[in-house]
Amino acid sequence: MDTVANSVQLPPLDNPNERAAVGAELQAALLDLIDLSLIGKQLHWSVVGAAAHGVHLFLDELVEQWRELADVVAERAVTLGFIPDGQSPTVASGSHVEPVEVRSLHDHLVVWELGRRVAAVAERIRQRLAPIGAADLVTQEVLTRVVGALEKQQWLLRVQVGEKA
Amino acid sequence: MDTVANSVQLPPLDNPNERAAVGAELQAALLDLIDLSLIGKQLHWSVVGAAAHGVHLFLDELVEQWRELADVVAERAVTLGFIPDGQSPTVASGSHVEPVEVRSLHDHLVVWELGRRVAAVAERIRQRLAPIGAADLVTQEVLTRVVGALEKQQWLLRVQVGEKA
Amino acid sequence: MDTVANSVQLPPLDNPNERAAVGAELQAALLDLIDLSLIGKQLHWSVVGAAAHGVHLFLDELVEQWRELADVVAERAVTLGFIPDGQSPTVASGSHVEPVEVRSLHDHLVVWELGRRVAAVAERIRQRLAPIGAADLVTQEVLTRVVGALEKQQWLLRVQVGEKA
Amino acid sequence: MDTVANSVQLPPLDNPNERAAVGAELQAALLDLIDLSLIGKQLHWSVVGAAAHGVHLFLDELVEQWRELADVVAERAVTLGFIPDGQSPTVASGSHVEPVEVRSLHDHLVVWELGRRVAAVAERIRQRLAPIGAADLVTQEVLTRVVGALEKQQWLLRVQVGEKA
Amino acid sequence: MDTVANSVQLPPLDNPNERAAVGAELQAALLDLIDLSLIGKQLHWSVVGAAAHGVHLFLDELVEQWRELADVVAERAVTLGFIPDGQSPTVASGSHVEPVEVRSLHDHLVVWELGRRVAAVAERIRQRLAPIGAADLVTQEVLTRVVGALEKQQWLLRVQVGEKA
Amino acid sequence: MDTVANSVQLPPLDNPNERAAVGAELQAALLDLIDLSLIGKQLHWSVVGAAAHGVHLFLDELVEQWRELADVVAERAVTLGFIPDGQSPTVASGSHVEPVEVRSLHDHLVVWELGRRVAAVAERIRQRLAPIGAADLVTQEVLTRVVGALEKQQWLLRVQVGEKA
Amino acid sequence: MDTVANSVQLPPLDNPNERAAVGAELQAALLDLIDLSLIGKQLHWSVVGAAAHGVHLFLDELVEQWRELADVVAERAVTLGFIPDGQSPTVASGSHVEPVEVRSLHDHLVVWELGRRVAAVAERIRQRLAPIGAADLVTQEVLTRVVGALEKQQWLLRVQVGEKA
Amino acid sequence: MDTVANSVQLPPLDNPNERAAVGAELQAALLDLIDLSLIGKQLHWSVVGAAAHGVHLFLDELVEQWRELADVVAERAVTLGFIPDGQSPTVASGSHVEPVEVRSLHDHLVVWELGRRVAAVAERIRQRLAPIGAADLVTQEVLTRVVGALEKQQWLLRVQVGEKA
Amino acid sequence: MDTVANSVQLPPLDNPNERAAVGAELQAALLDLIDLSLIGKQLHWSVVGAAAHGVHLFLDELVEQWRELADVVAERAVTLGFIPDGQSPTVASGSHVEPVEVRSLHDHLVVWELGRRVAAVAERIRQRLAPIGAADLVTQEVLTRVVGALEKQQWLLRVQVGEKA
Amino acid sequence: MDTVANSVQLPPLDNPNERAAVGAELQAALLDLIDLSLIGKQLHWSVVGAAAHGVHLFLDELVEQWRELADVVAERAVTLGFIPDGQSPTVASGSHVEPVEVRSLHDHLVVWELGRRVAAVAERIRQRLAPIGAADLVTQEVLTRVVGALEKQQWLLRVQVGEKA
Amino acid sequence: MDTVANSVQLPPLDNPNERAAVGAELQAALLDLIDLSLIGKQLHWSVVGAAAHGVHLFLDELVEQWRELADVVAERAVTLGFIPDGQSPTVASGSHVEPVEVRSLHDHLVVWELGRRVAAVAERIRQRLAPIGAADLVTQEVLTRVVGALEKQQWLLRVQVGEKA
Amino acid sequence: MDTVANSVQLPPLDNPNERAAVGAELQAALLDLIDLSLIGKQLHWSVVGAAAHGVHLFLDELVEQWRELADVVAERAVTLGFIPDGQSPTVASGSHVEPVEVRSLHDHLVVWELGRRVAAVAERIRQRLAPIGAADLVTQEVLTRVVGALEKQQWLLRVQVGEKA
Repeated sequence: MDTVANSVQLPPLDNPNERAAVGAELQAALLDLIDLSLIGKQLHWSVVGAAAHGVHLFLDELVEQWRELADVVAERAVTLGFIPDGQSPTVASGSHVEPVEVRSLHDHLVVWELGRRVAAVAERIRQRLAPIGAADLVTQEVLTRVVGALEKQQWLLRVQVGEKA
Repeated sequence: MDTVANSVQLPPLDNPNERAAVGAELQAALLDLIDLSLIGKQLHWSVVGAAAHGVHLFLDELVEQWRELADVVAERAVTLGFIPDGQSPTVASGSHVEPVEVRSLHDHLVVWELGRRVAAVAERIRQRLAPIGAADLVTQEVLTRVVGALEKQQWLLRVQVGEKA
Repeated sequence: MDTVANSVQLPPLDNPNERAAVGAELQAALLDLIDLSLIGKQLHWSVVGAAAHGVHLFLDELVEQWRELADVVAERAVTLGFIPDGQSPTVASGSHVEPVEVRSLHDHLVVWELGRRVAAVAERIRQRLAPIGAADLVTQEVLTRVVGALEKQQWLLRVQVGEKA
Repeated sequence: MDTVANSVQLPPLDNPNERAAVGAELQAALLDLIDLSLIGKQLHWSVVGAAAHGVHLFLDELVEQWRELADVVAERAVTLGFIPDGQSPTVASGSHVEPVEVRSLHDHLVVWELGRRVAAVAERIRQRLAPIGAADLVTQEVLTRVVGALEKQQWLLRVQVGEKA
Repeated sequence: MDTVANSVQLPPLDNPNERAAVGAELQAALLDLIDLSLIGKQLHWSVVGAAAHGVHLFLDELVEQWRELADVVAERAVTLGFIPDGQSPTVASGSHVEPVEVRSLHDHLVVWELGRRVAAVAERIRQRLAPIGAADLVTQEVLTRVVGALEKQQWLLRVQVGEKA
Repeated sequence: MDTVANSVQLPPLDNPNERAAVGAELQAALLDLIDLSLIGKQLHWSVVGAAAHGVHLFLDELVEQWRELADVVAERAVTLGFIPDGQSPTVASGSHVEPVEVRSLHDHLVVWELGRRVAAVAERIRQRLAPIGAADLVTQEVLTRVVGALEKQQWLLRVQVGEKA
Repeated sequence: MDTVANSVQLPPLDNPNERAAVGAELQAALLDLIDLSLIGKQLHWSVVGAAAHGVHLFLDELVEQWRELADVVAERAVTLGFIPDGQSPTVASGSHVEPVEVRSLHDHLVVWELGRRVAAVAERIRQRLAPIGAADLVTQEVLTRVVGALEKQQWLLRVQVGEKA
Repeated sequence: MDTVANSVQLPPLDNPNERAAVGAELQAALLDLIDLSLIGKQLHWSVVGAAAHGVHLFLDELVEQWRELADVVAERAVTLGFIPDGQSPTVASGSHVEPVEVRSLHDHLVVWELGRRVAAVAERIRQRLAPIGAADLVTQEVLTRVVGALEKQQWLLRVQVGEKA
Repeated sequence: MDTVANSVQLPPLDNPNERAAVGAELQAALLDLIDLSLIGKQLHWSVVGAAAHGVHLFLDELVEQWRELADVVAERAVTLGFIPDGQSPTVASGSHVEPVEVRSLHDHLVVWELGRRVAAVAERIRQRLAPIGAADLVTQEVLTRVVGALEKQQWLLRVQVGEKA
Repeated sequence: MDTVANSVQLPPLDNPNERAAVGAELQAALLDLIDLSLIGKQLHWSVVGAAAHGVHLFLDELVEQWRELADVVAERAVTLGFIPDGQSPTVASGSHVEPVEVRSLHDHLVVWELGRRVAAVAERIRQRLAPIGAADLVTQEVLTRVVGALEKQQWLLRVQVGEKA
Repeated sequence: MDTVANSVQLPPLDNPNERAAVGAELQAALLDLIDLSLIGKQLHWSVVGAAAHGVHLFLDELVEQWRELADVVAERAVTLGFIPDGQSPTVASGSHVEPVEVRSLHDHLVVWELGRRVAAVAERIRQRLAPIGAADLVTQEVLTRVVGALEKQQWLLRVQVGEKA
Repeated sequence: MDTVANSVQLPPLDNPNERAAVGAELQAALLDLIDLSLIGKQLHWSVVGAAAHGVHLFLDELVEQWRELADVVAERAVTLGFIPDGQSPTVASGSHVEPVEVRSLHDHLVVWELGRRVAAVAERIRQRLAPIGAADLVTQEVLTRVVGALEKQQWLLRVQVGEKA
């Protein structure tokens, strides 16, 4: 039974003294993704206007994607030995995503407000891809897929405000 | 074989002399729900406008729900020993739902016309929930779910005309 | 935006001055099919007898088929530029299908009453296949499938009253 | 670890000194539902007659429903802190449902015998809905759905013996 | 087109001057349910111990249920004309659910901490069922199902800490 | 490439000089099973009477089972190196199953005629299980399952003519 | 009950004195299709060669199609009031499809033998489409789809013997 | 119609004077299997402890298997012309499976109590396989699969109490 | 083996010297359908505007339909012994469908541009139905279904530009 | 807790002193089945030739079957109290299946090499069925199904090298 | 509404002045992938020979993959703000994939011709991975997966012409 | 036909003289993954203890993942023109994964033993990612996903021995 007391080791990072740094990057992405999922639901409930029903349904697909991306990001953090914090006080204080007004919101405004926020989250993570890759290729691959997914959402939202496709 | 001639009893209502009254409430709800399903199909075929395709698809979901609610309501009536009438002459003469014009109808008009009708049907049934509950809790539970479903539809339609969500 | 004001053209019929006539044929078939679906539900709720449960389930399959056939017929009409009317007052006044009594009905009677009505609807549409084909082969093909489906139902009902298979 | 020794509390009933009474009601319903499921299987194996195959299949659907209703009822009891007893000696002695003869049974007799038993179980539970609601709205809601399901079965059986639908 | 400017009405409550009160009850339940879903994910990531894998999977089922219950509750609020707020700052400040520590947590502790929180949320909503029912039977029915679901979870958690089933 | 010219060996029977005998048993069973499947379809098309629809559907399930059993039996023969013959002239001349009349047949007669034929096929195969087992346990296991399936069908048919279940 | 004794009418053919002729055409097609399905299974069991496994699987798809086409054809016959005969003696004597040898058959030979037979069946039915259409458009539509399906099979087989695609 | 009065024969046993004996063996197995299914549900509701949730779910899988095995066993009995009795009084008096205490039971105790009972049922049936095979190979094959399934369950339970796998 | 050298015959057309003509009609339809599928994807990527997301999704459904229709048309050609050409140079030079501009396109413009093109393709094929039917009823039936599908799409697009439904 | 220390008994074999012998038979079959699954994957990766793609896919089906058969065999061993060894050193040293060369292998060679190995494994197990049956009918039934499955594979492979089907 | 006029920003590339260059790479890959999908269909219709059926089915899987890869590539381009052109004239003039002859083509030739084209497309994209990665890691990750998929297809085709696996 | 003799080329590596080196890396990973899958099954059969059932099920999920990862790795090797060897002698001699004892193993020991082995395999592959990427980005991407999957498993195992999550 003594042997069981010995640890199953943590994954060795390519650049081992960056374990905390990589964990912090994942924590930052996690907060933004959880916040997007809460704001997405908020808009799901408060959108009005001629296109409201389509936006209402589309928001649930986006929320589902943000929840899955958040889970992938958090599980990568904990895999590396870093326990992330995704509870409401930490999300409220640490997320970079701005809340929306609590009132009926017209569909074009909903799309525009969301598009700006998704673009900002994607950009924040994209800027960190290179340093993360230097420490851990696996985490870089995870976050590259997160950025790809967010940028595709950004496009799908952008075109609905009549922007260049 | 004689024993078979004996009836399997009808469910005893809490307030037994109200069996006909409960049956009549269910019959009234049935007529309105069938009429909604026919009008929903009519609008499915005649909607035009920029949002027409989304409304066309949404109408089929609503029609499917009204058909299921109508079946639940009619089966509750017959369970209590009251044969309802859901044939076209009775629906035409007994439903409180106003027909729509037979012509191409713009999507915003379709949504508004339907929203008004769904709200009216929900309200008529809601007003009868309390007296029905005094006679039969099971029927009350059935109709409470009907009202809940109709009011949710009312919201989904209301927001599409730009009303408070 | 001006160009958008130009119409997407309607399908050109082989015999163009028969557009209204083809629309009227589809409208007549629609009313009968909707009425069959309402009567089918009525019988679903009121059938009694040793075979009642099987008939109760079979009726729901028939109702589902009539609803789908009605939708196909109505959508063909509107495709040709003819808005059909499938609302309860028009069905009640324009359908050729006779209502059934509002009371418990024995299973053999249900099957026989329904078999007669389905046969009559099939026959009315079949008689119009040739002139419709002269105007529009696509509509003829649609209605030929409707007749084929109804005649198969007629057989499945006929055998249950002990007729020649 | 000490804190773990502290109990997670039981749900507080609206009328707390009725916990045992509500548990007893659920236990009584459980015994009848389990017994119906055993008798349903017995009839599944012993039905004969021209309609036997349809009844054989229908019985499996009813058995499946009784098993699920029994599970819902038992889990509500244990949720309230009352361990129900659903083992064969308790069912045999405590159920109010009368066994059927162990021999081939004609389909009309099967339907009639079952219809009577289902009606009796539904009625016993219905009579207790009001007092249960005074103690615990959640349990009342659970049992109202049980009664609704049983009364619908009662109708589906009743019509097969040729009763008023 | 003027007519479109007219509102589709809101559902009339039984006790109309309680619309804001009912909305506030739903808002309170929403915050607790969202917070449970965030804490559930937190524990999904941080549970350790011999039973950790089973708890890890069970937590995802609970999170899925809380997300669905939150959506049902919020949609009922907005159906009544009350826009709820489910964003992170409001959840962080308004929820009654206490955060958990951000560190590896042993499985028995996870179950016990969660059980206490679920029980508390269920109890807060249960205490409001009666006054809500006086204003709106539909909302009462929605929240009764929420309480029933939470109390079942409470049982499933309670037994894992070795409590009376 | 020369080695490829060498045969992959046939399965060695426990009693090798009985390969032809086992093949002949499988061939006999195959002919009866194919003939049952053709007669089953014949009855599917020609059944009439109050129970005709249920019998019509049940026949398709039986036909499906006979087709699968025939395939299993033929594939066992060819696995042993015996090519069976399942073409129409051989079935017509070699099957022991008697054809039915080509006319509308009442449901009770259909069930009774089929029940007799299924019983006869089951009995013919059952009588050969012991000698087959002496030569090849695998074939015995295959045919034991065939007999089990046919005898269950025999029961399901027998009860429909009102026989002891 | 007297009324029930009255027949549900048969479908009225466009050319009513051709009912027997149309029935005979359907009967002829039925025999060929059943025989194809039996020969297809025979080849499924006896094909050898480098391509044998692919042919073995493809034959089961073809057999499935022939069984479905045979059912459609037979049900159209019986719908018109003509009971077809699909039993083994009638298939053996009346089919125009030649049996194959009962021995191992090389894959290219299997494909070629089958291709010839399918082509012949398709051609026999195609030659009768015009006269059948004069009597009954619905039957013509059914058989046109049969020919289309068989000719597509003919192509898929033809290319495997290296013929012009 | 007279011919219908003639019985469809029962399956001829290899040792025909053992029909009652085989029926009695199946009846005994049936009672034990039904009792296992009731006890399995009882434990599903009353298990507590750190492993309770996994055991709770595993019990439902076992209950599902026992219900299916009981159905197979009872249907084999009735196929042979023996009507089994699976009602609660007969199960209570005739089953060899001992009831469990009606109280919260710790998970290790649940597994151990169940393991002992499953082992005993498997052993009782195994001891009868040889004499049953002498009378009816098909029943032997059915019960051999029952024993195989129970012994596998016995292993899956045994290892959870830390026994040799 | 010599026999294998003999061809499996091609389907004999009703008007055999029109094989090339029928092939050419199918080739023309094929080019237009492939081009619609490429243009549909182009618009899927370049649509912008408030309704862009719904149009984006709807385009994928249309593209899927055009791909399936193109496959059906090409396979009918090759079945008749005519190898069609569906490669990009032939589509580019032979299709009658006009390309769209390569830039962001507003949703109403997308719908209108597409509606015009679909209408034109449908009309070109419709004009050829009669002569094709004189040569080959099966091809006529295939193309009638193609026209029916395209005209329904034409309606679904037409209503989105606010045209008569 | 003392009682838990008592063992849940092992299944009693018919011939109890053969427990080790039966375990050894299952162990031998397990090694051959695992080795087949590894060789099957090896061939899946290295097959070339005109029929390579079909063989590549077929090999994955066979591998899937061998994995499932290996699991059934190993679980039967452990059920009897015998822990089998299925790790690579034991498979490498104890399997009777000869490795294949590590190079591209032509499809006909792949089929022939595999056919020989499958035949040999089937034969080794078949030779032990009788003595195993004397000790344990359940294990005999398990291994009879294994032999049946392997011999069917042997046929499907044999025909691909052009052997008698 | 003014705020809506503000753009949702495009994703910022790591090397921003390479946006057009990355778009051009994606456009080039898109043309080749669309052309592969059209040529794949062409071969699907024109393949003949002993292995034709397997190749016919395999081609549809490849076509499906190329369509999905093309969509992923085009959507990445438009996400970056570059509208690609996938219409037939651009594909015909800009693709590097050589058309195939319009005639029946033997299966080995089909596989070889396709293998060469797939290899060439994979190689063209592979050569651009490094410069693309310098500008945009997300696009590099998308195209790396495209190359991986094409190279796997190249292997599956290569082995069918008997090449080193 | 001569042209067919020409090879379809192999994928050109970025660093072409490293083809053998990349192949050797993939071969090493393959051996470890196959060995994990065999050891995983071994533990699936021999785990005992209170948590044994959950571990037994979890092991099958892990085995399924290792089998899929092994297939992906081997197919990448053969795509590059390197035939890997995954047969038992090579796995036994070349894998770096240590066998487990052949006896009943307690669940905590199983989890700990497996966790150590998975961590070691992940680490061995991770150390090779950088040099592989220099030669072939596609292989690097494949192995990065393998490492990501193994490290996630490592976490899920680690937490079950009570380690930091």
